[in-house]
Amino acid sequence: MFRKLILVLWIISCNTFADDGSRLWLKYDLLKDTQQRESYIALTKYISFTHDSPIVATAANELQLGFEGLLGKKVSFLRNISGKTGGIVLEVNSDGASVQNLADDGFAINHLKGNIVISAKTPSGVLYGAFELLRNIQTGKNISKIAITNNPKVKIRMLNHWDNANGTVERGYAGSSMWKWTELPFRIDPRYIQYARANASIGINATSINNVNASSRFLTPEYLEKIKAVADVLRPYGISVFISVNFASPRTLGGLKTSDPLDPEVRKWWNDKTKEIHEYIHDFGGFLVKANSEGQPGPQDYGRTHADGANMLAEAMRPFKGIVIWRAFVYKADPNGDRFKEGYDQFKPLDGTFDPKVIVQVKNGPIDFMPREPFHPMFGAFPKTTLGMEFQITQEYLGQSTHLTYLAPMFKECLDSDTYAQGKGSTVARVIDGSLESHQNSLMAGVANTGSDVNWTAHPFNQANWYAFGRLAWDYNLSSEQIAAEWIAMTLTKNKTAQDKINTLMMQSLPVYISYTYPLGTAHMMGEGHHYGPEPWLAKSGRPDWTSVYYHRADSVGLGFDRTGKVSNALSLYKPEVRKQWGNADECDLNYLLWFHHVPWTKKLSTGRTLWDELCFRYYDGVEQVRKMQTNWESLKNEIDTETFENVQGRLKIQEKEALWWRDACVLYFITYAKMPIPAPLVPPARSLDEVKKLVEIYHLR
Amino acid sequence: MFRKLILVLWIISCNTFADDGSRLWLKYDLLKDTQQRESYIALTKYISFTHDSPIVATAANELQLGFEGLLGKKVSFLRNISGKTGGIVLEVNSDGASVQNLADDGFAINHLKGNIVISAKTPSGVLYGAFELLRNIQTGKNISKIAITNNPKVKIRMLNHWDNANGTVERGYAGSSMWKWTELPFRIDPRYIQYARANASIGINATSINNVNASSRFLTPEYLEKIKAVADVLRPYGISVFISVNFASPRTLGGLKTSDPLDPEVRKWWNDKTKEIHEYIHDFGGFLVKANSEGQPGPQDYGRTHADGANMLAEAMRPFKGIVIWRAFVYKADPNGDRFKEGYDQFKPLDGTFDPKVIVQVKNGPIDFMPREPFHPMFGAFPKTTLGMEFQITQEYLGQSTHLTYLAPMFKECLDSDTYAQGKGSTVARVIDGSLESHQNSLMAGVANTGSDVNWTAHPFNQANWYAFGRLAWDYNLSSEQIAAEWIAMTLTKNKTAQDKINTLMMQSLPVYISYTYPLGTAHMMGEGHHYGPEPWLAKSGRPDWTSVYYHRADSVGLGFDRTGKVSNALSLYKPEVRKQWGNADECDLNYLLWFHHVPWTKKLSTGRTLWDELCFRYYDGVEQVRKMQTNWESLKNEIDTETFENVQGRLKIQEKEALWWRDACVLYFITYAKMPIPAPLVPPARSLDEVKKLVEIYHLR
Repeated sequence: MFRKLILVLWIISCNTFADDGSRLWLKYDLLKDTQQRESYIALTKYISFTHDSPIVATAANELQLGFEGLLGKKVSFLRNISGKTGGIVLEVNSDGASVQNLADDGFAINHLKGNIVISAKTPSGVLYGAFELLRNIQTGKNISKIAITNNPKVKIRMLNHWDNANGTVERGYAGSSMWKWTELPFRIDPRYIQYARANASIGINATSINNVNASSRFLTPEYLEKIKAVADVLRPYGISVFISVNFASPRTLGGLKTSDPLDPEVRKWWNDKTKEIHEYIHDFGGFLVKANSEGQPGPQDYGRTHADGANMLAEAMRPFKGIVIWRAFVYKADPNGDRFKEGYDQFKPLDGTFDPKVIVQVKNGPIDFMPREPFHPMFGAFPKTTLGMEFQITQEYLGQSTHLTYLAPMFKECLDSDTYAQGKGSTVARVIDGSLESHQNSLMAGVANTGSDVNWTAHPFNQANWYAFGRLAWDYNLSSEQIAAEWIAMTLTKNKTAQDKINTLMMQSLPVYISYTYPLGTAHMMGEGHHYGPEPWLAKSGRPDWTSVYYHRADSVGLGFDRTGKVSNALSLYKPEVRKQWGNADECDLNYLLWFHHVPWTKKLSTGRTLWDELCFRYYDGVEQVRKMQTNWESLKNEIDTETFENVQGRLKIQEKEALWWRDACVLYFITYAKMPIPAPLVPPARSLDEVKKLVEIYHLR
Repeated sequence: MFRKLILVLWIISCNTFADDGSRLWLKYDLLKDTQQRESYIALTKYISFTHDSPIVATAANELQLGFEGLLGKKVSFLRNISGKTGGIVLEVNSDGASVQNLADDGFAINHLKGNIVISAKTPSGVLYGAFELLRNIQTGKNISKIAITNNPKVKIRMLNHWDNANGTVERGYAGSSMWKWTELPFRIDPRYIQYARANASIGINATSINNVNASSRFLTPEYLEKIKAVADVLRPYGISVFISVNFASPRTLGGLKTSDPLDPEVRKWWNDKTKEIHEYIHDFGGFLVKANSEGQPGPQDYGRTHADGANMLAEAMRPFKGIVIWRAFVYKADPNGDRFKEGYDQFKPLDGTFDPKVIVQVKNGPIDFMPREPFHPMFGAFPKTTLGMEFQITQEYLGQSTHLTYLAPMFKECLDSDTYAQGKGSTVARVIDGSLESHQNSLMAGVANTGSDVNWTAHPFNQANWYAFGRLAWDYNLSSEQIAAEWIAMTLTKNKTAQDKINTLMMQSLPVYISYTYPLGTAHMMGEGHHYGPEPWLAKSGRPDWTSVYYHRADSVGLGFDRTGKVSNALSLYKPEVRKQWGNADECDLNYLLWFHHVPWTKKLSTGRTLWDELCFRYYDGVEQVRKMQTNWESLKNEIDTETFENVQGRLKIQEKEALWWRDACVLYFITYAKMPIPAPLVPPARSLDEVKKLVEIYHLR
């Protein structure tokens, strides 16, 4: 009794601390509903496992930690449970009936002989099952009749860190890099373990630890020793490590005269380097390569193809289980071209020439992680190539750390898109998971939003995007609402009414964001370089396709990039059914309209408004919606930890200010072309275009 | 009884968490000695204050927070204490007997009429007194007869943040900037308040929030609003805010054609801007300026002097209480010159021409924060100018985040140096505090080592350098040992034996570091640009005085920079007594020898060894001493929180590795000039010079 008292007091008292967000969604706070707690306690009397694997041990430890927090009791480990009932059994079973329908990482959770048995073919499967069980308890599910069989849809579920050797993070908005390179290999930051737990809990099983704009520093023995230390921490959580490589490394690091992928010495250098890496990390995941893109070196520097480069690395990887991930994000500067078509055009002739060990990683859309893009035309058009998905979790174009934007609906919109490659139902998801074209490998990668900030992601709601990415990589059939519901219950509040309110807030956040930034299929109008704030007037930059005017094509007639046969004909890259769906300005979904059509300002849209009026309406409505989000958040004050509440409250104020900035910037700029009044009852901006222009200039000051 | 139990359990249980270092030295954990606790409890029955000031409220709140943690009881605030005894009274009293001997920020703590009375002339004084009382309790002092009168030696005790607008920190080794500019002004990171508390607790009363390589972004209304939000947080802690300004702002920001300080429009621009700043921050601290230094713009761009520039800003500041801090860190690229003399030579003609509102901020030594430098020759040579001190707390050249190096002895070595400006006893400290030359203002600034890392400073012991800087700025007569003792007791352990061991470790750390990096008065041999690791062979850089060979001047004859009359004659900048002390190679303190003399490799030193042998001996001994530090730290395992223990343990391993790196790099390089064997019983390095050279090359890879 006294012990129990201590424990309860301990948990109550510790909850009185403000929540700094560092625990992410793995908050094992005592469940307050006594009856519910007792029902779980009756089913978790012990944790039994016999399989001798670090990953199974991780699963058992996590269950113990979770039960201690959630249920307020320390649950023992048992080896022999002969005849005992009421516990949890972890079972790795390569060919039993319980695992018949399981993939390697899949798991089953069932009641068998009075115990809850988590079965899997592999230790990783057990780990994912353990987290599933914990999630059931965290979200208050009844587990007395639990019966789950669950397989991941995609094999490699991966984070891509754009973290630099010097500790900065490209497109990072949550402090500096979480990897402390100068401290490694000797000091292991406890945050690495928290990171591993968080990833394992949502099924992420791979991570590339450095920026795709890669320093060859990461291939030196000095750094391999550091990366080995990270790999050693992540391994018991089922996470393998990839390295982003600089294609010029044979020259810059190896001292060779060339990095030509067909040069025997270069090939030998990569073979040797790959062997060397495996001396540090025996289960090395593989290479991630950005080549001949935005100034990075690559095989084209030597007149070779992307396939030549990728296949050379695949050859080096042949003795090992690792793979080569080659990015399709390439585009050459051409003021008269259409960047939309670049990846497709450069890679199309190579379909069928890539080594089976190569996965070509394609961004969700053809430009660059815009808030809404049509799905990339490569999906469905490369039947002989394993294509992986690259999503961006960090919100480069989606509000960075100052806008509440829940990304699951965006990820799903792309995954659910039908390519019609093999008739109706040939969704992007089925291209990615390998099922459509019978590929063995499959990959979904997300560019990470983690940093050194105490709460990992700066905006508390940005944590939800990390969570959602992992859950969707595991199972893209989960709904955005369900994922949000899980995350909210684990992270923010157990109050059902509050949960629903927050879920609504999250679900409306992306359309709201798009409304005041990129309505009607506009794109790429952000501040130059830093990508913060609006700069639709940007007309000169290092490359034509880094300006805004290249994309929106505003003129006295109208707005939008004509990608029909009349101009760039990028639409022709899609199957006829897709072309049909977007090809006619009168029928095109308004959300994609200006991606494909240059629409006259005066044209009546399906809403009954002219393009100009609809544009104004959306910009204004976006700002109004942010104000409603603020009000809704205010109503949650008593249900949310104070530190978190105030954190989000403050950021929503910034969001409102920046939404107004976007609205005024875009409306005041486009009106110079449309030359029509802002439609009543909307009130014209209080400031001038020049005043708004000055706002973004601040961020160009050195 | 039950309440007490809860409280005790709460504190015990919360202590079972690993300590992430985020609380710095303000750890108000329950004192375990019951008797001691009871004795404090008897003296802290209430907290009484009547003065209506936010700063006094801060003091009262801090006492309440401290007592709640340390003593386990919530102490009430009382207004009227007529006749009551046994409490704490906070008293702001502009002319009573109790404050007769106090300066503005000073305080007295005495037993008066049965209460402990903290008296001061100003609210800030009360705040410092409150922290002094808490420190007494935190360090287990008997306060039953407390009687303290304490005045700061220096008026402006200031941190300089080299934090950039983009969130990076120049020479920062603890993550990114702690200032979250995109979140401000609407979101106030709770860390700002922790920062303010930590600073106030050691007497720091000013902070400049941005890099001296300054972006004019900080002078825009957008940023002034953000800075105002920071100032509003810091104000109740007695801390005023300064801004580092870019001298070219009238041109880059104001759109003027020039930034010439004698141009009427430029002067008007600064006058207006200064007024504007005060509309946001009525008690604005002032400007900090790096001009005509390392590429920064300045008055010399227009043929004007530093005084012209500084006085223009002083004029703009005239209607206000703020000041202008102008840095003396200037040097022009001259392969045949001696950077040692640059600041002195450029500023000497200006002595007496600066506005009284100007403080010229001088680095402790004439080069750039080397681990050991002779005191800057400007000290004592500028009787008509208010000189401020600039120390570097961030360890750019002192091991960054991977070496345990306690800096108080270095700060004190400079402050205690005798300039002989007005005869014996004319110490640098007395120049700085204004007493030697009767200046009204006085300033000690430290370049901050704070960042976004959870524990603020990356290396747990780097916290001690922040602490020590503040304590010495308040009172440079405190000994390094005493400051270390306070910090250890508050931060690491209450165990006396362990405290002593750690104190010894800290006190030996600087000499050990110097031994394996810069023995015998060598300097500036670190890796190019990043300043990490050794690169004594560096012979080409953007400027001659950015190389290593410029400083060590190794040749077949010997080693060291001859600054006697034979070569640069930098010694002539000092008073005759100082010249005498360093001018003769046979008598010069070995710690300063190679700063002033080019000494033959074969010359016998006072130790009985030749220069070469002594050099080798010191490098080798430094490494051995690090190994002893490791052993000593290991012995403390049971007395230190596990997370902190392992953090330091890991970093000491890195330190050993890097100490060996420095030793081997320097010994293997210098032997190519000395052409003598490494003296027995020292064992020559196992690696070649080429191998060691490769190690630093890694850090030059993009």
